[in-house]
Amino acid sequence: MSKPHGDAPEPAAGKPAAAPTEASAEDRLIATYFRPIATHPGAFDLTDDAAAIAPPAGCDLVLKTDGVISGVHFFPDDPADAVARKALRINLSDLAAKGAAPLGFLLSIGLPAGMPPDWLKAFAHGLREDAEHYGCPLLGGDTDRTLGNITVYIAALGTVPHGTMVRRKGARPGDIVVATGTIGDAALGLALRQDASAAARWGLDAAMRDHLLGRYLLPQPRNAIAQVLRRHASAAMDVSDGLAGDLAKLARVSGVGAAIAVESVPLSAAARAAVAAEPAVIETILTGGDDFEVIATVAPDKFEALRREAAAAGVAVTQIGTVTAGQGAHFRDPDGRTLAFKRAAYSHF
Amino acid sequence: MSKPHGDAPEPAAGKPAAAPTEASAEDRLIATYFRPIATHPGAFDLTDDAAAIAPPAGCDLVLKTDGVISGVHFFPDDPADAVARKALRINLSDLAAKGAAPLGFLLSIGLPAGMPPDWLKAFAHGLREDAEHYGCPLLGGDTDRTLGNITVYIAALGTVPHGTMVRRKGARPGDIVVATGTIGDAALGLALRQDASAAARWGLDAAMRDHLLGRYLLPQPRNAIAQVLRRHASAAMDVSDGLAGDLAKLARVSGVGAAIAVESVPLSAAARAAVAAEPAVIETILTGGDDFEVIATVAPDKFEALRREAAAAGVAVTQIGTVTAGQGAHFRDPDGRTLAFKRAAYSHF
Repeated sequence: MSKPHGDAPEPAAGKPAAAPTEASAEDRLIATYFRPIATHPGAFDLTDDAAAIAPPAGCDLVLKTDGVISGVHFFPDDPADAVARKALRINLSDLAAKGAAPLGFLLSIGLPAGMPPDWLKAFAHGLREDAEHYGCPLLGGDTDRTLGNITVYIAALGTVPHGTMVRRKGARPGDIVVATGTIGDAALGLALRQDASAAARWGLDAAMRDHLLGRYLLPQPRNAIAQVLRRHASAAMDVSDGLAGDLAKLARVSGVGAAIAVESVPLSAAARAAVAAEPAVIETILTGGDDFEVIATVAPDKFEALRREAAAAGVAVTQIGTVTAGQGAHFRDPDGRTLAFKRAAYSHF
Repeated sequence: MSKPHGDAPEPAAGKPAAAPTEASAEDRLIATYFRPIATHPGAFDLTDDAAAIAPPAGCDLVLKTDGVISGVHFFPDDPADAVARKALRINLSDLAAKGAAPLGFLLSIGLPAGMPPDWLKAFAHGLREDAEHYGCPLLGGDTDRTLGNITVYIAALGTVPHGTMVRRKGARPGDIVVATGTIGDAALGLALRQDASAAARWGLDAAMRDHLLGRYLLPQPRNAIAQVLRRHASAAMDVSDGLAGDLAKLARVSGVGAAIAVESVPLSAAARAAVAAEPAVIETILTGGDDFEVIATVAPDKFEALRREAAAAGVAVTQIGTVTAGQGAHFRDPDGRTLAFKRAAYSHF
């Protein structure tokens, strides 16, 4: 354990800094890698202590922070650009589910000593591409040397017209429960990273295996339907800790229950193959997490509009069940039996 | 190295979660320790995925993120409540220097396994007291299990009337350079933590030693004078990486130089005693960092108003030099010699 500040680099011997007019290594790092992502004028090219932005008139700010830690949320050998994308996208996914348009983000990154320079270059490249693609510029940040693993925290800001953030609270009995995309792919992708032999056991071809691995590596946040959700959903959240547990959270705070038909949960071809080969895999799919799809509830008379407008934006929306007057999220198989899960949702504690 | 997610707690054997209606351990932790700090209505009692706040009309948002990592920014045996206070205050210090009123903050905390429950309780207690004292409520956050050291990142939001954030850029030749409070105490406090024998060498009594240790442990951000700075300062920043280096940054981005009279830099009685006993200590004072005082530049005809209004708010402001048309921050001793520093400022890289 180093003492605080004990890992700070010392200047080369015999080179005293008589008049400190030169930028420090930390400043140069920021200028080289992060300034190009700080395209918002209020980021002041990252040359000030803080950003200053005028929020759009009549809008609420939607604020979210989430992070990824090497060895916890990603593998140490994941490509650096994918780590950056994942860190940003897990926050963008929350903005999407809340109906918010991205405004920008703050980045805090802790790096252990001895990182290859190429790592940070690739990280910044991925971050820049995603920041541009999603219209979410870097507003400011903090770079630290850490004694632990690579740690990337992002605080994302979005906007919605005043009072229109889509809440978890708001589901009403009789509403339809929907999910975007397909569920469980990322959890199966993680399982494949931990046990490559599962691919053969599940009878996956190479494309199926790559699909699942890719879904774990790179979330696909549903920002394309943020406005659609705001127009039609009574409640929504993104699925990060597992469909079963996250839906239970939405139901609890809404004071309702949910009845889900397991066979209607949308699965990829790869996930269907895995379940066919090993039926117990359905639990991993429903509780594994890292989906970064959106679950939402919608009044029956709005469901078709939501489905159609989401499809027009390129996002499949599937009915998976209904909101009930009861409690809890109940997953029933085609024979009407309620599934019992060993673990309902991912929890860090 | 655990595999990703491999450190997630498993449910007790034989206790399947049939209908996941119960809150997870992570949810309970948040509800117990952090919900009481989330007093802003837009934080939704931390029961949603994101906060939604209506920014004050006519205001710019001032955004800052900074963090503390155990073993880098604080000692592992520092009291948990002080760790929380430091994490929040280093961000509040930036808001103060930028002239911004605190609006709220997001918290990301990574905890290693096996933390005693009392640690988090004390952490939350300190955080709550400071959030109330500085009028800066918790808006949302993220709690993770980390494989490394305790990591606390905060993203702070403040507000200023549109276009009035006090910039680093703005110092003009002829302006007076001022500093708040006293400089170097925290760096000497850190030196005492690393080498307790320095107290005797510097001839410090117990009160002096405790003063320096306290200044390292707990920054005293100058939020009381945020408005005063906005009214009068041409440029400002907080001193986190050392007076010499931070002033050089301000000068560089303003396109000016600064001439500082070392003997006018405000020192505490303890720091004066240390310098008297060991003159080389002046370099630690001027370059050591963690001051969390404000340096500002002010037109000569506004200096007296700034000084008087700051004093009325309880903050001493001292002239330490002048802005020049040159380059760099030059520190001159009473004999007119320019000091040469081994290291101008703290840099993580």
